[in-house]
Amino acid sequence: MNRRRFLKGSTLLSGLAVMSPTVIFSNDLESISKKSKKAKNIIFLISDGMSTGTLQMANLYSQNILNKNGNWMNLYAENKVARALMDTASASSAVTDSAAASSSFGGGYRVKNGVLNVGPNGEKYLPIWQKFKNAGKKAGCVTTVTITHATPAGFCVNSDSRNAESEIAETYAQLGIDVLMGGGDEFFNPEKRKDKKDIYKIYQEKGYQILKDKSGLENLKKDTKTLGIFSTGALPYSIDRANITELQYTPTLAEMSKAAIDQMKNHKDGFVLLIEGGKVDWAAHANDIAALIHDQLAFDEAVKTAIDFAENDKETLVIITTDHGNANPGLIYGAEATQKFNSIADYKYTNEYILNSIHSNFNLQQIKDWIYQTNKISLSDQEAQHLLDFYSGLEKLEDGLYNYKKLPFKAYSEIQKKHNNVGWISMDHSGDYVELAAFGPGSELLKPFVKNTDMHYLMLEAAMSV
Amino acid sequence: MNRRRFLKGSTLLSGLAVMSPTVIFSNDLESISKKSKKAKNIIFLISDGMSTGTLQMANLYSQNILNKNGNWMNLYAENKVARALMDTASASSAVTDSAAASSSFGGGYRVKNGVLNVGPNGEKYLPIWQKFKNAGKKAGCVTTVTITHATPAGFCVNSDSRNAESEIAETYAQLGIDVLMGGGDEFFNPEKRKDKKDIYKIYQEKGYQILKDKSGLENLKKDTKTLGIFSTGALPYSIDRANITELQYTPTLAEMSKAAIDQMKNHKDGFVLLIEGGKVDWAAHANDIAALIHDQLAFDEAVKTAIDFAENDKETLVIITTDHGNANPGLIYGAEATQKFNSIADYKYTNEYILNSIHSNFNLQQIKDWIYQTNKISLSDQEAQHLLDFYSGLEKLEDGLYNYKKLPFKAYSEIQKKHNNVGWISMDHSGDYVELAAFGPGSELLKPFVKNTDMHYLMLEAAMSV
Repeated sequence: MNRRRFLKGSTLLSGLAVMSPTVIFSNDLESISKKSKKAKNIIFLISDGMSTGTLQMANLYSQNILNKNGNWMNLYAENKVARALMDTASASSAVTDSAAASSSFGGGYRVKNGVLNVGPNGEKYLPIWQKFKNAGKKAGCVTTVTITHATPAGFCVNSDSRNAESEIAETYAQLGIDVLMGGGDEFFNPEKRKDKKDIYKIYQEKGYQILKDKSGLENLKKDTKTLGIFSTGALPYSIDRANITELQYTPTLAEMSKAAIDQMKNHKDGFVLLIEGGKVDWAAHANDIAALIHDQLAFDEAVKTAIDFAENDKETLVIITTDHGNANPGLIYGAEATQKFNSIADYKYTNEYILNSIHSNFNLQQIKDWIYQTNKISLSDQEAQHLLDFYSGLEKLEDGLYNYKKLPFKAYSEIQKKHNNVGWISMDHSGDYVELAAFGPGSELLKPFVKNTDMHYLMLEAAMSV
Repeated sequence: MNRRRFLKGSTLLSGLAVMSPTVIFSNDLESISKKSKKAKNIIFLISDGMSTGTLQMANLYSQNILNKNGNWMNLYAENKVARALMDTASASSAVTDSAAASSSFGGGYRVKNGVLNVGPNGEKYLPIWQKFKNAGKKAGCVTTVTITHATPAGFCVNSDSRNAESEIAETYAQLGIDVLMGGGDEFFNPEKRKDKKDIYKIYQEKGYQILKDKSGLENLKKDTKTLGIFSTGALPYSIDRANITELQYTPTLAEMSKAAIDQMKNHKDGFVLLIEGGKVDWAAHANDIAALIHDQLAFDEAVKTAIDFAENDKETLVIITTDHGNANPGLIYGAEATQKFNSIADYKYTNEYILNSIHSNFNLQQIKDWIYQTNKISLSDQEAQHLLDFYSGLEKLEDGLYNYKKLPFKAYSEIQKKHNNVGWISMDHSGDYVELAAFGPGSELLKPFVKNTDMHYLMLEAAMSV
């Protein structure tokens, strides 16, 4: 398709190039643009690392425990969206990381795992939020992990390494991204940065308001560039926030999403917004079912926020998807499968919180009491001893991308599995095809099977004005 | 929706009741029937127990090793089908078995696991192939497992137990199902049946031709009722058939499908045909990746057979789906994930064949040689010893629904995982939502999210003549 090829080429040039109507539109595209209204705004929602089973179990939990259907699935039931299966591979592997996945959406090219919008020979693919900024729109990102993390970064910057979060914090300011909300104080705060630079000051000098907590979010100045950094590292998991008072100063993903939309919705040329449920991925890496379900449900609330706005606005394309599967969790067949699954409603905290509260000086009864108190699971002596062995050094500590504290996530998840019937294939990403839905103007461009890179061009087709 | 309710009620009555135009069609249905052509034929394809990862890995194998896209995914790429996510739960559990799943399609009601179209108070829901037979169409089933197995049975019969395969063999004859092809000689052959009844004779007396092998299939009499029983138990796995000469007298699923279509396509009132890739499920139960991929690819060939016919015929609704997930297999992230996945091309046989060929008198070197010869995997002494322990009785024998021979499927799959990066959550079904596609007249009735029972009513709406 000529237009596709042209747009691919154009990503190497200025974002403005794609705006020229004389060159962009081949005949087939003209016919599309005639029959469909252009999107003024785009909201792109990513539940990071969401396998099919994650979506299904969050919806099952919603139905069985909360007595309502999930918002994402409701859009299907009400026949309001176009859907696709998406192939999520990267340039280097059939199984992507979040940097390459985000680059596919953001730059329109598959790159190798670990890099952000940089090709094999150092080519820099112009990230899509820059393209839309160049075209006059406002652009924003909100996430539950660090705002400088791979997924938001892939929509905004080029970098040889997703780990360059300190630099990415500065780059966002240079680009003037209009709304940025998430965690990552360590990349902005001079006391926490290695180079002692005060990045907040840079933002303030550029006219940004700086938010630090939920009340700041509730009282923000309208139509002002906004940097909301609500935590060091990622924001808390939803289930911990719900049950631990000290964490409740942080906003939910839906609250950040609502604020970000409100902040940009009056802009005459429209806006583009990335919303990432980043800790769905971390929960899958930890094989932590309560963390997973509650963060997927928090993402589902953000879906509602976006759709509520878009239904009213009528000029907004909303895309709802994930960047890749992770751990392929699923509810396993068995005589009491449903009842066992429903017991997850008794879980009060993430496994991270539960396991981090155990210390090597606990005795077996203390471990058993704590697990019963937090999960309503009665451990055998042997299970309690097995857990304790990780703290006393008798068992080799577990490792993992987001297991900073070397907690026995896998060992504990295997104990939980006997009670909740949920299994996992691993503690890492999978190559599964994933679910994608599109709502509003531009959704008619969606084909039933897409590559992740296709979404880059779909967004340009849907929202670049002619 | 009134029509739905009406049709639900009608399933308790004769199949003829649903044919009365004066009562069936509410206003919304009339508008549908006005704008869409009725389907004369239906082909319903079920890859039993196909998780999302099964579909993705079969397509990846097709692309990487066979240098072509899969047929199912091609339908998406070419934008030829409507798609849905399907909720597969049963009346008794969030995770269904194949009997309840097939009953949902077949009877239009969710029943408890293990039974075929029988409700909680003994209600018998008229199976859909009987409804269509009553309406004058021909009906058939082909499968790679026993023809009396849960999935074909759920489209045809009522039974308190899916295990009543000997009775089901007789019931099919009473019903006069027009084409039956698969395995299960033990349920027809007087020498193998407990009651010594000659079921083949019953079929012959009713005018059926009996086929026993592939050459019989190639030389069948046209427009004659057909019973093709090609094996005791299930048919061989595709990869074993490809590499073991003695198994090549059995037909493939695509060959049976083609023959079944040819046998019924000239009937003036049309036909309905179930095509089941039944051993995809068995391969998932065994965590056997080569068996899984090659049987999914064999199913994909049957998809092509069905679509080729339907594209030409233009009066056939084709539905392509599964009845539930199983084991949620997926390719796991890692430095060499793609290369490791591609090593599956070196696997010559199923794990069932490989493990069944090992005996307790093997020494370690013999095991290592055999595994290298069949999988190109070099076992360590420790791994070879671990396998041998299952044969010498030092390790507890594995169990499982389709593990008749108590082979160490799980232990061996865990060894393979180190080499192919494919993981599994369990050896049983999962509650995941599953993929469904519809092609041809009636596909416009498909909503983006369906319950398995919805497909019963969709078939009636699509193909019952007014």
